[in-house]
Amino acid sequence: MIPDTGAPLDDRGLLLGDGLFETLLALDGETPRLPAHLDRMAAGCEALGLPFDRAEAERRVRAATPSAGRFAVRLTLTAGSGGRGLERPAAPVPRLFATAAPSAPVTTPASLVVATTRRNEGSPAARLKTLSYLDNVLARAEARDAGADEAVMLNNRGEIACAGAANLFWIVGERLFTPRLDCGVLAGVTRARILAAWSVEEVAVGIEALEGADAIFLTNSLIDARSVSRLGERVFQPHPLIGALL
Amino acid sequence: MIPDTGAPLDDRGLLLGDGLFETLLALDGETPRLPAHLDRMAAGCEALGLPFDRAEAERRVRAATPSAGRFAVRLTLTAGSGGRGLERPAAPVPRLFATAAPSAPVTTPASLVVATTRRNEGSPAARLKTLSYLDNVLARAEARDAGADEAVMLNNRGEIACAGAANLFWIVGERLFTPRLDCGVLAGVTRARILAAWSVEEVAVGIEALEGADAIFLTNSLIDARSVSRLGERVFQPHPLIGALL
Repeated sequence: MIPDTGAPLDDRGLLLGDGLFETLLALDGETPRLPAHLDRMAAGCEALGLPFDRAEAERRVRAATPSAGRFAVRLTLTAGSGGRGLERPAAPVPRLFATAAPSAPVTTPASLVVATTRRNEGSPAARLKTLSYLDNVLARAEARDAGADEAVMLNNRGEIACAGAANLFWIVGERLFTPRLDCGVLAGVTRARILAAWSVEEVAVGIEALEGADAIFLTNSLIDARSVSRLGERVFQPHPLIGALL
Repeated sequence: MIPDTGAPLDDRGLLLGDGLFETLLALDGETPRLPAHLDRMAAGCEALGLPFDRAEAERRVRAATPSAGRFAVRLTLTAGSGGRGLERPAAPVPRLFATAAPSAPVTTPASLVVATTRRNEGSPAARLKTLSYLDNVLARAEARDAGADEAVMLNNRGEIACAGAANLFWIVGERLFTPRLDCGVLAGVTRARILAAWSVEEVAVGIEALEGADAIFLTNSLIDARSVSRLGERVFQPHPLIGALL
């Protein structure tokens, strides 16, 4: 049921991207945000109609976490084995596994371009961290092809949604903004920490909002808050608030 | 490199839905549409920036095809193993495998509902048969929850795109219609056969076009052309053209 070495060829995560994942930071064996990540995976399973064995997920993460050093730990849940076609078995048995990879702290600012690949605001999957992540892979590849670090993804309405692997925030004067979840935005754990601690306006706006901002930053569980140095031709200066957020 | 029993835990198909698949019909060991499916996978690999070993793909399909009976053969290509994160290795080595499952002919008409889950017309992946198929899984689940066989998927502009696992056509008088590819439509092999043989209008239109049609049918490689018996409350009668199309 739960593999340590591979997924069988009838696994619905492998065949159809039917499943979820979490990426969290482990520092010297500690994973302080693990409860928030398990909460999010539990909510994702509920949205997808999959059972979630939280204790087993936690056990997998702990077993995969090295005792020393800085690591990105990835927890993956697939919808488990199934027959041919789109439909799940009547009682799916998810498959859980966790792996760790060394993760150096990121200290440089990020350069951004706007991707042509759009975020699908019309799917519940756009608010979840699912195994169907190809749109984000394509957006990041566009950024790399353009010599940039990350991509800004708009949705099909032209509203700012997120980066390839991060949430987006921007600062105008003393105001802090981030896209609304219904723009096709993953409810990031770091995003939620900032929303809980600061006054942030959640908005549905076009790319001109970023172009007119004083500063932009990216957030995820591995980078915390990372400054943006440029968006296309527009250059941004470091902003003192960014280092003080978390 | 190429597994017969499973995919390793660093496989990008498993982790990120980074890859493609084809489903084709095998009848008593014959797969007459195999060249068209290999053409489509080759085009998908080019769109995704992946190399494609056509001879190996063909060999995999032939090895998986039973010599007698009616089978659905699925050919899967993942982007292969990779490190952590969205970005592929510099020279990805795709992983190919094929499996076969018995497939009875479908002789009953299909009932449809309109899914709330939308097709992402703003991603190149919407025109490809990718491993990131969760939106279609969710749309089909909506249909099943509503007691229907299949879902009609609209895109974010509200235009008709496709069904969960089929292309859509409809008939008005003597005119035949299907959604344009830029509505977020997979270029189906059966769809292409119909377009090559008949005069079909490719259009970008809302759900009212289906509601006002004389008849609707679904196409894919396993069902050829399947009549639709109802869309929500609207009932459709069998249309003589549908059985004569292919």
